[in-house]
Amino acid sequence: MPALNSARRSEANAAAVAVMAEADPVLTDVRPALEALPGMTPETILTSGAPMPWERYTGGQRRAVLGAAVFEGLAATVEEADQLLHAGKILVRACHDHGCVGSVTGVTSASMPVWVVTDANSGSRGHCLLYEGSDRQRLTYGVWNETVHQRLTWIRDVLAPHLSAALRAAGGVRVKPIIRRALGMGDDLHSRNTAATATLFQQLYGPVLDVAAPVATTRDVLAFLSGNDLFFLHVGMATGKCLADAAAGTPHSSIVTAMALSEQEFAVRTAGTGDQWFRSAIPELRAKLFDGITADDIAFMGGESLITETVGLGGLAAAAAFSLQDYSAGTAPAMVAATEAMYGITHGEHPTWKIPYLGFRGVPFGIDAALVAATGVTPNIHMGAALREGGHAGAGLLIAPVQPFQDALDALDALDRAEQAG
Amino acid sequence: MPALNSARRSEANAAAVAVMAEADPVLTDVRPALEALPGMTPETILTSGAPMPWERYTGGQRRAVLGAAVFEGLAATVEEADQLLHAGKILVRACHDHGCVGSVTGVTSASMPVWVVTDANSGSRGHCLLYEGSDRQRLTYGVWNETVHQRLTWIRDVLAPHLSAALRAAGGVRVKPIIRRALGMGDDLHSRNTAATATLFQQLYGPVLDVAAPVATTRDVLAFLSGNDLFFLHVGMATGKCLADAAAGTPHSSIVTAMALSEQEFAVRTAGTGDQWFRSAIPELRAKLFDGITADDIAFMGGESLITETVGLGGLAAAAAFSLQDYSAGTAPAMVAATEAMYGITHGEHPTWKIPYLGFRGVPFGIDAALVAATGVTPNIHMGAALREGGHAGAGLLIAPVQPFQDALDALDALDRAEQAG
Repeated sequence: MPALNSARRSEANAAAVAVMAEADPVLTDVRPALEALPGMTPETILTSGAPMPWERYTGGQRRAVLGAAVFEGLAATVEEADQLLHAGKILVRACHDHGCVGSVTGVTSASMPVWVVTDANSGSRGHCLLYEGSDRQRLTYGVWNETVHQRLTWIRDVLAPHLSAALRAAGGVRVKPIIRRALGMGDDLHSRNTAATATLFQQLYGPVLDVAAPVATTRDVLAFLSGNDLFFLHVGMATGKCLADAAAGTPHSSIVTAMALSEQEFAVRTAGTGDQWFRSAIPELRAKLFDGITADDIAFMGGESLITETVGLGGLAAAAAFSLQDYSAGTAPAMVAATEAMYGITHGEHPTWKIPYLGFRGVPFGIDAALVAATGVTPNIHMGAALREGGHAGAGLLIAPVQPFQDALDALDALDRAEQAG
Repeated sequence: MPALNSARRSEANAAAVAVMAEADPVLTDVRPALEALPGMTPETILTSGAPMPWERYTGGQRRAVLGAAVFEGLAATVEEADQLLHAGKILVRACHDHGCVGSVTGVTSASMPVWVVTDANSGSRGHCLLYEGSDRQRLTYGVWNETVHQRLTWIRDVLAPHLSAALRAAGGVRVKPIIRRALGMGDDLHSRNTAATATLFQQLYGPVLDVAAPVATTRDVLAFLSGNDLFFLHVGMATGKCLADAAAGTPHSSIVTAMALSEQEFAVRTAGTGDQWFRSAIPELRAKLFDGITADDIAFMGGESLITETVGLGGLAAAAAFSLQDYSAGTAPAMVAATEAMYGITHGEHPTWKIPYLGFRGVPFGIDAALVAATGVTPNIHMGAALREGGHAGAGLLIAPVQPFQDALDALDALDRAEQAG
């Protein structure tokens, strides 16, 4: 009975998209991952992408997991950490399975602080590590050394408690209006977060100043908040996860709830297929690299910032962010065309996140795997490139394959058939 | 010899535009008008537009001039001030003749603090009052009462010294990169200054925190700097005046150096015609008014924020600011067309102020009165509307007439002929 299925899927998709569109995500706190993330344990290390056996992690993600094990005191050396990981005494798990998303390697361990974004309407929560700073050497980019160790310690022991106190005193910060405003100021909220970072700073500087702390500490915190235009990205990612998880688990829905990369794979989830990942090989990344960097210098290390596209931002909102043209479709008209194509694979439009150039039309919202499979058009994804040895190398378009969306749809069809048969 | 004139004018225009394009305007200080403005005296009150006899000021500008006279202690009452103005004991002069530009009424008196913007390359300076705040009741909008008096006193006695100390400690703030960045974030720098305000705040909060002052004062200053998205406008206006005055006085040049409104007139200056004003009646303002406001509620009170268009911003940069579409040409494509038309009446393009949508083409830069006269195309001007009783009523397009540009050109031709004859 395809007609019946079709109506049921349509209703399910409408419900899944509605809960995301109506969400009122609020940045409420910064907490240690162990405390904030469901199912987290002291011996668990989270990483970007669909999970793989430890042996398959060979590059930046491997280095970052080993570093996190030492950072947590689970091992004295990376060699010991490797043994414990092989022995299953330290567990590598997927961020997405613990209410979290990760940037690049996405490596998140128990004591590391995460943003907490909460939607009171649905009860959903999303989390993401704090932005690690502008230095090329970051665990995010697969680097582990004393510099990284010291910065992660400062983030954990100084920055996070200060921001936690500021956010709690402020009663949280609503994220939806910040994203709305930033879309009107040239951000796509993935490759470009310049306006959102400035807006968050305007809202947070007061609460940050009110926290009892040495003057120098307060100034360090303010400088960190305003010092890099990508600072807001991780807040947006936690927000995306909060929204996507509000839709996740909606039976019969083909709305995409996650797109993620490990070092080895691209993978997709839909609302109606629960926690199952639909995997493909790593897709092509058409990146414009920063001056002096060549294709040989870059490497895939995973990444879940694609959660922004999952909720209508990033490449889906390309027509809001013409300043990015060299790192996107090449020209402003091509970015407009890219966004317009996205209306063909999304369920609808966001009610308040609007694109000025398109006469304030809402961003394409709620990627439907069934529409991707039917049209062969895949999401337009803005994606950063990572240096093999650590650091931000550039940004461009990730050319997602149709297959995992088709596979998700097939699995959903199979579930529907099984239910009807049963 | 028209060919000779033409080559000489072309060279003069190139020189006038080059000095504006190469300027490196720096926001160096905040000083009392008496100290900063050339030719200012304690008994002088400056106002927007080409100057008129006191009798011709009948609306908001009249109320604001009277209020300023009381604010300065030149008269105990507005009635006494009126007598002194009639008697010539208090002088009404044009902002533009004292290195200054004014917002709406533009009323600027001796003790009021002005932004100081300096270009070390040309030695030019531009000035403009500090933004008066978000309250509907402002001297800027022709309101004089105790509330206005108190706020002007706070600006003079608290805000201005604090900002002066901050700017001097910071060694000034370069304005050119802020404008460049803001154009990439949806500002036109006239009707919209959201990004520039946020960027200036990111640069100034540190120096403001460093000034020795009571904590509550510092917090008031920070709140004032970040509390209204138009805060940067007056900095941009002082910058425009700094650039325009660097070109002013270039012999034989038909480049526009001022466009200004009084309550009664629109007026234009060009580089080659010095301080002479070329006047017309007030043009039509096609404004979108804020909710609940009708055409009967608004009134012309002057305005010199058109200095932003004079230096390639505002309506000339419409294609950078699609968020403004309801307050500009109506749609994004119409804003693109408006900016594209401006390349037909400008000498060139700014080298670093660029419009993302147009493939990072520089803003149309250096309005040429000869091209306006030849084409009949007048500058696309973004303009705020004022409530008759005070306050911001909306914004829209000012439809400038050709005649004053033609008159300026005729005067320039006459000067050239006189020089050749002589």
